[in-house]
Amino acid sequence: MQNTSKIILGIDPGTVVMGFGLIKISNKQIELIEMGVLRLNTKEDGFARLEKIHHKVREIIKKYKPDSFAIEAPFFGKNVQSMLKLGRAQGVAIAAAIQSGLDVTEYSPKKIKQSVTGNGNANKEQVMKMLQQILQFKERPVLLDASDALAVALCHHLQINQPAIAGTTKIKNWKDFVAQNTHRIK
Amino acid sequence: MQNTSKIILGIDPGTVVMGFGLIKISNKQIELIEMGVLRLNTKEDGFARLEKIHHKVREIIKKYKPDSFAIEAPFFGKNVQSMLKLGRAQGVAIAAAIQSGLDVTEYSPKKIKQSVTGNGNANKEQVMKMLQQILQFKERPVLLDASDALAVALCHHLQINQPAIAGTTKIKNWKDFVAQNTHRIK
Repeated sequence: MQNTSKIILGIDPGTVVMGFGLIKISNKQIELIEMGVLRLNTKEDGFARLEKIHHKVREIIKKYKPDSFAIEAPFFGKNVQSMLKLGRAQGVAIAAAIQSGLDVTEYSPKKIKQSVTGNGNANKEQVMKMLQQILQFKERPVLLDASDALAVALCHHLQINQPAIAGTTKIKNWKDFVAQNTHRIK
Repeated sequence: MQNTSKIILGIDPGTVVMGFGLIKISNKQIELIEMGVLRLNTKEDGFARLEKIHHKVREIIKKYKPDSFAIEAPFFGKNVQSMLKLGRAQGVAIAAAIQSGLDVTEYSPKKIKQSVTGNGNANKEQVMKMLQQILQFKERPVLLDASDALAVALCHHLQINQPAIAGTTKIKNWKDFVAQNTHRIK
């Protein structure tokens, strides 16, 4: 059944910190592969930082060969300049995915929180705790950008593989699924 | 003297049209190599458009092997969403340049106009006419995004190779240089 396993790479790009998280789905089991952050030196030139983001994403793709790439995309921002910079950071990350032929999907922060915790207004801490429960890990990432990126990957999995269970109402998020299917969760 | 020639690629990225222009500098002569646009289908998915931008820039770099890459970067925009999209378009273009080891420089629209025409508030038409004069071409591009991109390339050349002429005041832009050095311009 090796062919049925899929790896999803979630990216939470930023101009100061970029979070990344990878999950593997095999036979309905979801497994944490890796999560982490790339810290960027704010004293460094903007283009040098973009190069580091692009390089890091290419490196991750080369190492784990994900099947899908999902990105967190805000729909609001502080100002136009910060949005332009964020767009560039996203752009160089997306370019790395495009080159490897990955499909690219974006999710709003609200959608990600809703999908993972059942609450579109959950904070980073709540998202992280839900991820610990679902993906069964105890370590707390130093920067929550890492768990945020992991949440993007999980959100993508939940969106494309909505668990369909006969005789139940439509599952809107993982929390509902957990609540209704405790026997299916290890 | 072949080694002294340099090719500059100018890009004016957008989410609907991307302009590109290439100039070659050899022995103080500036020559137009190519200018054009990539039209993007607005009905198409945003990521498919980013893929086309990235692909086109890679293609241009592969074909002409430029030494430098310059990009027009606005500092104002209509709204944060359009700036995020523009940033992404820039990001995938920048990623193509980074991968080929090109140095990347950005210029504001005002700086480009100032540098090329001597007037930071010049319109696209005025910029185009000045380019026709400097680069000695008569054809008018269908979309002025092409000449805008060419202006970015020329601006970069003027910034890194400010003509220094003994006994004259500092040359601030190409117009001044032309006015003071008609004998040097073919």
